[in-house]
Amino acid sequence: MTDKNIVPEAEILDPDDCWRLLGETTVGRLAVIVDGHPDVFPVNFTVDNRTLVFRTGSGTKQQAIEADAVVALEADAVSAEFGLAWSVVVKGRAEETTPTGPAMDEIRRGLFPWQGVGQDHLIRIVPRLVSGRRFSVTTPMLWRTSLNEATRAGLE
Amino acid sequence: MTDKNIVPEAEILDPDDCWRLLGETTVGRLAVIVDGHPDVFPVNFTVDNRTLVFRTGSGTKQQAIEADAVVALEADAVSAEFGLAWSVVVKGRAEETTPTGPAMDEIRRGLFPWQGVGQDHLIRIVPRLVSGRRFSVTTPMLWRTSLNEATRAGLE
Repeated sequence: MTDKNIVPEAEILDPDDCWRLLGETTVGRLAVIVDGHPDVFPVNFTVDNRTLVFRTGSGTKQQAIEADAVVALEADAVSAEFGLAWSVVVKGRAEETTPTGPAMDEIRRGLFPWQGVGQDHLIRIVPRLVSGRRFSVTTPMLWRTSLNEATRAGLE
Repeated sequence: MTDKNIVPEAEILDPDDCWRLLGETTVGRLAVIVDGHPDVFPVNFTVDNRTLVFRTGSGTKQQAIEADAVVALEADAVSAEFGLAWSVVVKGRAEETTPTGPAMDEIRRGLFPWQGVGQDHLIRIVPRLVSGRRFSVTTPMLWRTSLNEATRAGLE
């Protein structure tokens, strides 16, 4: 196998496609800057009127986010059957939001606070830039799954 | 369901556990700082003697990484059967490395360049800090998989 065989073909996704794909997944990785250094952690998010909402517990990262911070959230998925993968990144500003009303209560219950403990916070990302790419996957690869899971899912 | 029911129990992982888990997965999300803003993208990495190595194409992110940058790479996985999830973060400095020798050639061939096109670069993350947590997953959740994939894998 030469290197050429494993260079993916990338297609730029338009914003509508990006938002549709974001709506189809629930886990992303959030990148923040804490004390001048990048940090990244998984969040379980939902799309709410072209913003992203997630929960976080109290702690350093919550404080970093709460301070009206710039953040980037990436979500992705792969379809082994169709040989396609996509990755969407939302860049914007994170702000704490108040869970009010039945719709927001439902969002709150459905989300999983991966960070911190105790009283949790609901954070909204207001996008400044949304970008996405779709790849043709032309080589056997492992993506988002450990070896066992990948084998089980038929990714071989 | 009250909120209390969906707060995960987290266990701190020691460095040996973190490295073992990193060795069992191949995809992580790399957070970098570009022009003062966080960015995050998937990378297909391998563990090489307690460092992480991945490929990237030419482009903005490669330039950001090449400049001896501080980065954070997060990897995670879930076991639906055992109700466990883990997340490991490696923080350190990224530096371009030269692919030499048979071992490095093998690493290079096995990695997938998600970013950029053309001549690719091999980047090594030299860790400054490795941390990890394991969660008991006490609620149905979607993790790393789209709804279709999750259903197929028995996550319901």
